[in-house]
Amino acid sequence: MNIGFIGLGNMGGAIAARLIASGHAVTVWNRSPEPARRLGEQGATAVATAREACAAPVVFSILSDDRAVREVLLEAALPAKPGTVHVNMATILPDLSDELAAALGDQGCGYIAAPVLGRPDVAAAGKLNIVAAGPAADLDRVQPLLDVIGQRTWRFGERAAQANVVKLAMNFMLAAAIESMGEAASLGSGYGIEPGRLFELVSQTFFPGPVYQGYGRLIAAAGDEPAGFTARLGLKDVRLALAAAEAVTAPMPFASLMRDTMLEALAHGEGEKEFGVVLGRSAMRRAGRQRP
Amino acid sequence: MNIGFIGLGNMGGAIAARLIASGHAVTVWNRSPEPARRLGEQGATAVATAREACAAPVVFSILSDDRAVREVLLEAALPAKPGTVHVNMATILPDLSDELAAALGDQGCGYIAAPVLGRPDVAAAGKLNIVAAGPAADLDRVQPLLDVIGQRTWRFGERAAQANVVKLAMNFMLAAAIESMGEAASLGSGYGIEPGRLFELVSQTFFPGPVYQGYGRLIAAAGDEPAGFTARLGLKDVRLALAAAEAVTAPMPFASLMRDTMLEALAHGEGEKEFGVVLGRSAMRRAGRQRP
Amino acid sequence: MNIGFIGLGNMGGAIAARLIASGHAVTVWNRSPEPARRLGEQGATAVATAREACAAPVVFSILSDDRAVREVLLEAALPAKPGTVHVNMATILPDLSDELAAALGDQGCGYIAAPVLGRPDVAAAGKLNIVAAGPAADLDRVQPLLDVIGQRTWRFGERAAQANVVKLAMNFMLAAAIESMGEAASLGSGYGIEPGRLFELVSQTFFPGPVYQGYGRLIAAAGDEPAGFTARLGLKDVRLALAAAEAVTAPMPFASLMRDTMLEALAHGEGEKEFGVVLGRSAMRRAGRQRP
Amino acid sequence: MNIGFIGLGNMGGAIAARLIASGHAVTVWNRSPEPARRLGEQGATAVATAREACAAPVVFSILSDDRAVREVLLEAALPAKPGTVHVNMATILPDLSDELAAALGDQGCGYIAAPVLGRPDVAAAGKLNIVAAGPAADLDRVQPLLDVIGQRTWRFGERAAQANVVKLAMNFMLAAAIESMGEAASLGSGYGIEPGRLFELVSQTFFPGPVYQGYGRLIAAAGDEPAGFTARLGLKDVRLALAAAEAVTAPMPFASLMRDTMLEALAHGEGEKEFGVVLGRSAMRRAGRQRP
Repeated sequence: MNIGFIGLGNMGGAIAARLIASGHAVTVWNRSPEPARRLGEQGATAVATAREACAAPVVFSILSDDRAVREVLLEAALPAKPGTVHVNMATILPDLSDELAAALGDQGCGYIAAPVLGRPDVAAAGKLNIVAAGPAADLDRVQPLLDVIGQRTWRFGERAAQANVVKLAMNFMLAAAIESMGEAASLGSGYGIEPGRLFELVSQTFFPGPVYQGYGRLIAAAGDEPAGFTARLGLKDVRLALAAAEAVTAPMPFASLMRDTMLEALAHGEGEKEFGVVLGRSAMRRAGRQRP
Repeated sequence: MNIGFIGLGNMGGAIAARLIASGHAVTVWNRSPEPARRLGEQGATAVATAREACAAPVVFSILSDDRAVREVLLEAALPAKPGTVHVNMATILPDLSDELAAALGDQGCGYIAAPVLGRPDVAAAGKLNIVAAGPAADLDRVQPLLDVIGQRTWRFGERAAQANVVKLAMNFMLAAAIESMGEAASLGSGYGIEPGRLFELVSQTFFPGPVYQGYGRLIAAAGDEPAGFTARLGLKDVRLALAAAEAVTAPMPFASLMRDTMLEALAHGEGEKEFGVVLGRSAMRRAGRQRP
Repeated sequence: MNIGFIGLGNMGGAIAARLIASGHAVTVWNRSPEPARRLGEQGATAVATAREACAAPVVFSILSDDRAVREVLLEAALPAKPGTVHVNMATILPDLSDELAAALGDQGCGYIAAPVLGRPDVAAAGKLNIVAAGPAADLDRVQPLLDVIGQRTWRFGERAAQANVVKLAMNFMLAAAIESMGEAASLGSGYGIEPGRLFELVSQTFFPGPVYQGYGRLIAAAGDEPAGFTARLGLKDVRLALAAAEAVTAPMPFASLMRDTMLEALAHGEGEKEFGVVLGRSAMRRAGRQRP
Repeated sequence: MNIGFIGLGNMGGAIAARLIASGHAVTVWNRSPEPARRLGEQGATAVATAREACAAPVVFSILSDDRAVREVLLEAALPAKPGTVHVNMATILPDLSDELAAALGDQGCGYIAAPVLGRPDVAAAGKLNIVAAGPAADLDRVQPLLDVIGQRTWRFGERAAQANVVKLAMNFMLAAAIESMGEAASLGSGYGIEPGRLFELVSQTFFPGPVYQGYGRLIAAAGDEPAGFTARLGLKDVRLALAAAEAVTAPMPFASLMRDTMLEALAHGEGEKEFGVVLGRSAMRRAGRQRP
């Protein structure tokens, strides 16, 4: 099948590569040309404009934020050829999904929101969990492609925005778990408890799985880690969750607190560091227990 | 071995039963006599005063709170026969553990804090995780008994209070996870996302294990559940965590928020309901989305 | 002098009336025509479009929020006649002021932000305090008009946005005072202290002046008051303060809390009630002490 | 009249001096002897034990905290001579007042709680505001003495503890005002607004009176001030307010936030600095805008 693909960051690149590897004809575009060139070597057709990538009957996009989605998609995807389907994998506000769904729907096109859970290495292995929402007929049509990308697609309704909300809720719970680990560590360290040992306990009892274990290791470690996901992006996601919740008059006090914590971190120059480490160590810093 | 056992609530009763079943001579006492009588039928010796139970070379106790520990232990366990070891499994302030350790230490006795992770059915199966701290020699001495009670003992240092701190930190992370689920549900439900479906996703991806799954089911369910652990007790644990943290100048903003949330719940007559449900549904109530 | 005036709500109407009464030729426009008609009877010239009102050498506007300012001003005031000055009295984001200042500046026009402190009766008496910022030469030019409107103009710099920030900071301090009164009342009432008596004490000792006295009376009173300033608008101002603070990475935890409190109030249908009463009584409600 | 006076700190010393100056026979005691000796030069009788000071028919005490009140009063004032009245001016928990009132009441004695508003210089001028509660007959009896000490006595009920609650509520509102000023300053300073100028505006419009003006000056100033009231004491008062509120299930979210802020301050070695400055500047620090 001819597929357009817009946005070739770490995640987008890995996902596009899987589609290419499974035999599809993929037309790729990225703001900076290098990632498109690299995928060209794997068999993709690199094009010069997002508009060209949008000519395919099914288009995937995974752009960095609401602003990029607005700038790129609204001008590249519209007007659209009737009958095409756009699959937007970005983490954006539900309002923007509603807007895109309406704009594409007006032209007889489908719009699916399908953000994913997992890091680039998981994407490369095709093991992502995909959170999808949009008209069932459109979803059915792209399902074979989603099956190439992820191990499972979780459908959350006929309104595309619903998938965005679920993604924001998921990221929020992840962040809250990290903050709670940080506070627990700040309490424990006042009594000589090693954070690493506390996280070992918690991840082998209450909270098995990769999150408490992985972030536990990051928070407990002494050094600076390369930022896979920056504090600035983490703040952005918390902010999106708060905005989406405000639109339905839902207070989220944990999210409010984390927003304030991350603002403080940015004010102190930590915006480009790893989100989990910045958030997870903030409680230690407040308690005056900086780790070396 | 002769073992004294004080406090036969749901947890205490299940633990004492295991010690009896493994062949030890257990002398039991409880404030209300009925649980002691029942264990008598299983082979325990029920005595009329806590003091008598404290005559054994190893004494376990698991009382409900700091006040009960003060009232019962300080008068029953002191003066103590030199060389005895007291194993306190209650969730109490580290300060009180320090006080008891000092008082017993003055008399040549050992003091171990050994709170447990798990509910009564886990205790009955001998599958508890035990969080223990205290002098290594004393711990070594009671380790065979702890092995009867739990599947694993996690040692956290030579100062008994450290185990209490770890237990408070664990309960805090558990509570924070529940609050985060509630807030995520309040966000999602504003967009027509079923909380149960959201929790299914989260517990099969980010957070496997019993907590997100079990509490997810409780929060998403419509009905009132019998309270295994009441909101009042949940507030007590949050308060203990805050007090223990204050003593080492560690701010715990998530804990502060949950304290305020639980106070509001108590002010509205929810003190005797199930903690996880009260906390987990509070965000829904704030957002005006009461479940039926 | 010929003056254009856009936005004739309670405040705008009172301010325009003063300009008319002091002998100026005022051309007025309002979205709904009735207020313009009434001012016409006092000597104003009512026009059919905002654009016509913008033809005057000095134009005042006081619109309800950022959206109205965008919709009305950006199309009515641009392109502008070089040399004109626009005085914007609305409570808006500093970013929007920057945008308007740049747009008007490009055309050789001046832009002043001049939000006011005080309610409509104060405006009618010409006793407002005016918070103004913008190029000094432009401010000097309109100062005689500001002197008709207010008792004092407080200048806060050459960048118009600065006045908006000061206004948001003022409203935030006002809201925080109200929340603190509510929490104090919820504490006191648990011990049989009448809120009214507590507020009498505080307003005659620590905090003289109209705020603690006036809101104290409102919060302590039993009934529902007509909303001079609705909870929805109060939430809007808190949100603007948070957004303006976020843009300069300043966490405002009190503002975050009040945002959450007001969201809860809106979720429970209190959006159109008086802001001070809704906020001030929220603490009583959380403590289960609803007033009749 | 013979008066006993216990506790001669800055406030106690100034108050005792007024009683002496107005012609009463005052028997004084203080933990460290120097202040008692100095008052002896002004005509007081310095005694060696608090018990001796408690022999007078009316006894005033103003000790630093709950612990000092427990240690000194419970052993010095009991057993008491029937018919005597104790006036406790300390800022303590309402529970402790209830306990003292009951203990003294059992012996046929009166107990009044009468904390004061104002600093030592106000006390020296006899201009304090006195917040008093207790049995009316006892209050009537000591009223002439209160009239020597303060400009006005505000009565808050027959239960002494009520005065303690009012004092805690007042201190809480004061602290909240300071925190709100700090946050407003952190917002404004991001846009080049001088905090001092902002506080000048607020104290000449919304909030006249000494608090916003005085603390505004302290917060805006660059230097370190001698601590009239330390951050450690400020945290203590916030903690007492939270404890008193918890006893009547009243959440106080602003107080929770300030407790966390002050804990962080103490963790960073600011416990002995001036409370208003530490609290008021914390928002600036969070926003990365330390003042020189």
